Amino acid sequence: MSAATRLRRLDEAMEIVVLERSGYVSFANCGLPYHVSGVIEQRSALLLQTPESLWERFRIDVRVASEAVRIDRSRKSVVVRDVATGEESELGYDRLVLSPGARPVQPPIPGIERALTLRNVEDTDAMVAAVRDARTAVVIGGGFIGLEVAENLLHRGMSVALVEATDQVMAPLDPEMVAPVHDRLREHGVDLRLGSAVTAIGEHDVTLADGSTLPADVVVAAIGVRPDVALAREAGLQIGPLGGIAVDSRNVTSDPSIYAVGDAVEKDDALGDGDLLVPLANTANLQGRRVADDIAGRGVPTRPVMGTAIVGVLGLQVAAVGWNEKRLRAMGRDYLAVHTHPASHATYYPGAAAMALKLLVDPTDGTILGAQGVGESGIDKRIDVIATAMAGGLKAPDLAELELAYAPQFGSAKDAVNMLGFVAENRLSGLERSVQWHEVEAMQDAGVTVVDVRTPAEFEAGAIPGAINLPLDELRDRSAEIPDGELIVHCGVGIRSHAAVFILGDRRVHNLDGGYTTWRAGTAA
Amino acid sequence: MSAATRLRRLDEAMEIVVLERSGYVSFANCGLPYHVSGVIEQRSALLLQTPESLWERFRIDVRVASEAVRIDRSRKSVVVRDVATGEESELGYDRLVLSPGARPVQPPIPGIERALTLRNVEDTDAMVAAVRDARTAVVIGGGFIGLEVAENLLHRGMSVALVEATDQVMAPLDPEMVAPVHDRLREHGVDLRLGSAVTAIGEHDVTLADGSTLPADVVVAAIGVRPDVALAREAGLQIGPLGGIAVDSRNVTSDPSIYAVGDAVEKDDALGDGDLLVPLANTANLQGRRVADDIAGRGVPTRPVMGTAIVGVLGLQVAAVGWNEKRLRAMGRDYLAVHTHPASHATYYPGAAAMALKLLVDPTDGTILGAQGVGESGIDKRIDVIATAMAGGLKAPDLAELELAYAPQFGSAKDAVNMLGFVAENRLSGLERSVQWHEVEAMQDAGVTVVDVRTPAEFEAGAIPGAINLPLDELRDRSAEIPDGELIVHCGVGIRSHAAVFILGDRRVHNLDGGYTTWRAGTAA
Repeated sequence: MSAATRLRRLDEAMEIVVLERSGYVSFANCGLPYHVSGVIEQRSALLLQTPESLWERFRIDVRVASEAVRIDRSRKSVVVRDVATGEESELGYDRLVLSPGARPVQPPIPGIERALTLRNVEDTDAMVAAVRDARTAVVIGGGFIGLEVAENLLHRGMSVALVEATDQVMAPLDPEMVAPVHDRLREHGVDLRLGSAVTAIGEHDVTLADGSTLPADVVVAAIGVRPDVALAREAGLQIGPLGGIAVDSRNVTSDPSIYAVGDAVEKDDALGDGDLLVPLANTANLQGRRVADDIAGRGVPTRPVMGTAIVGVLGLQVAAVGWNEKRLRAMGRDYLAVHTHPASHATYYPGAAAMALKLLVDPTDGTILGAQGVGESGIDKRIDVIATAMAGGLKAPDLAELELAYAPQFGSAKDAVNMLGFVAENRLSGLERSVQWHEVEAMQDAGVTVVDVRTPAEFEAGAIPGAINLPLDELRDRSAEIPDGELIVHCGVGIRSHAAVFILGDRRVHNLDGGYTTWRAGTAA
Repeated sequence: MSAATRLRRLDEAMEIVVLERSGYVSFANCGLPYHVSGVIEQRSALLLQTPESLWERFRIDVRVASEAVRIDRSRKSVVVRDVATGEESELGYDRLVLSPGARPVQPPIPGIERALTLRNVEDTDAMVAAVRDARTAVVIGGGFIGLEVAENLLHRGMSVALVEATDQVMAPLDPEMVAPVHDRLREHGVDLRLGSAVTAIGEHDVTLADGSTLPADVVVAAIGVRPDVALAREAGLQIGPLGGIAVDSRNVTSDPSIYAVGDAVEKDDALGDGDLLVPLANTANLQGRRVADDIAGRGVPTRPVMGTAIVGVLGLQVAAVGWNEKRLRAMGRDYLAVHTHPASHATYYPGAAAMALKLLVDPTDGTILGAQGVGESGIDKRIDVIATAMAGGLKAPDLAELELAYAPQFGSAKDAVNMLGFVAENRLSGLERSVQWHEVEAMQDAGVTVVDVRTPAEFEAGAIPGAINLPLDELRDRSAEIPDGELIVHCGVGIRSHAAVFILGDRRVHNLDGGYTTWRAGTAA
């Protein structure tokens, strides 16, 4: 619809037909889970446009319940099936735009046909009907949709179990970053089953690989989506290595008369040579607009994509952009990771919330490779600022220089993003050595001493096994108490230990990145 | 303190002395107004560090109530007066960092000595004492501090009048952008006196130039600040054209052994050849850090400044970055202005608030010259994103391509910042002609017809004098009703009229930028 309406504005005379196999166009995809709970009360709020309104305003001929079943590229025509009658007809085109989206993955589990999915208005209607008298639910999959569905079913007062095959929810983030999400889910009573596979879906329950069963009046499958390329493949269009329709920077497929956009296509990865599948509304909308521009003869290439994304989970904001550490490690690529735990705004002003932020940096030139954030507020802003810095080609140390709007309700004089820049600059310049939470144990085994510079009370409440406690403010006087050899120093989040690094500067000292907070999150995950 | 603590981390051995004429260091300047109301309950919350804590942690020798009264550059020494005893002593330096800040402007009004100001902890204590039994207040000056003080006095239940010499509060923004702030102040009962000068301050009231008097148990002067350059000037250091201490990109003054930072200095303007005074906490903090780096031999030049700023006013966020239209017009410089009125997040999700955004663009190359925003939420994020885009050298059309984190609680699939990019691109490429609210009347006088494409109900509720009403969805059928000649089309905010521009595309049509909403704000101001 983004392509169609933009194209009408660019060309008042062109004939524009939209084919849609479901009964609705231009609905609020990202709002669907929130209607299941009633957070979005009115079903009508989900329907942003109708075929009638689109004709009235844009003279766009929208045909719902009309499925494109075949493309005849030589004749430049599409075979359209009327979903109600099964009748087929042919429709010619000068330019064709494919926007088929993605289909939910349906694993071959016995009983999977009972699982609900959530992609369109019909799915939503079905889920609303199914949950009306339901008390228990099993949600399979801990990605965006799975988490949103789980939250909204909880909001209805249901008992919810969330089953995720890997060890963590929200795959775009690294495990230590999602530990607060796991905690939050459990605090709200979600029966969180990580590293668990569903082996069967029964009439009233779900069976896991470990033999346990979970009660399930309702089962929701939110395992992920795959580009819907059936029509494109059958027409002989090129499919990319990730299984999406292959397009160039103008979103043109291997047929110069056919464009493709949205969840169905794969796009150039902004951070590397490869491709990305980015099934997100913002990139889809932009691609639609750019295709209209191109058809109208005013096209500009789209940028490669970074996949900035966010989800709300029971009051937490969980967001990411670019690459994560898992991927960098899998690629064997060198990187610098920075973890911080700043406040969402000045701590002396009421309402400041703790954030966990992570920045991934190329150690050779400071290029920002990715960022992640989790917290009750302020995460969306910081991830958007970092995504914008990445788009502008700013390096990690440049984040230190950003002039961000500060008043105590909104940020800090040294904003959380500035602080990421400071830390990155200190590490990239060699001023400070750091280690990651997952490196501590092996270093201890090799004889490195861990010095915890927090207060005795903090140390008593929980500490890294084997660490010795020397509070920062006593460090100058008591440094003789530290054994010889290499050191890891740490505090709660990495700020006090940063000062300690320099007090102990005549020795080989590593600051534990993100402090005890990140270490605990990582080792708990 | 930013310079001193950073320097200690960079050099454990250096002797670092801090001289402070007041009784406090490292206090929460930006929190002071909020302690007057009790929003920040504890006075102790304002005191982030003490001389004792700074010695304990950083071995910094902090001397409060110690005023630097003279610099002897040839001897590299400072004469220090003990504020309590008046005794003077001499202190040598290798490097001197001046951070004297700015002083409140005190206009020569009879009775001005009764007016309170708010710059430090002592001022705050005095204001807390003065308002304890006060019922009425006059605040002179509608800038950041004046607005914050007015809000906090209202919060105490006081009757507040705000007197501002110009026609608008918040000078960094243009008049049509602050109309919602004027409305908000009046809705909360503030007696807002714009274009008013105070001629006398009496014991219980304030007299204005028009002869009226305002009751005033308390008077607060928040007219602005001037760099405190007395010490620097007396030492023969170069003062810049705006009255701040002149420094280079390393914050070095005209004496290579003396640095200066913060509100007292003038810095290069990121957008032009001139200088800027930016009395803001974030730039001051960064400059302090950079000076420490420079002293330690690891200096990098600081970037020119843009002056990103925000203030909260009775639930409104009011923010700006870069240049405003007033300044561009005064300079006679060509510019493109874009006004939008998007929602803070997807409108189908509860809690979306209306925002007013403005982007100023160089029409020759799309350089972003400035941005402004007003609204109940989401403004801080959008201004930060635009400030980051400016720092990264992104052009206005590049804003269209930014991948910003979208879920319906946090933004829109086409985010407000993307929309600014779309509009700028349409205008810069010549696809759409636009006019500003302040150009309408002269164009009507020259025979241009204004076509209002809103619904009849919207038109009836308030319209531009002389406009004819033709709803968008009837425009194709009824365009014959429009008189010959050039047209201005408009709707509520500029979106429907954008479609209308193309429907009427065979004529010379201008879209009224920001629609009726911006026109009404501008003409009401």
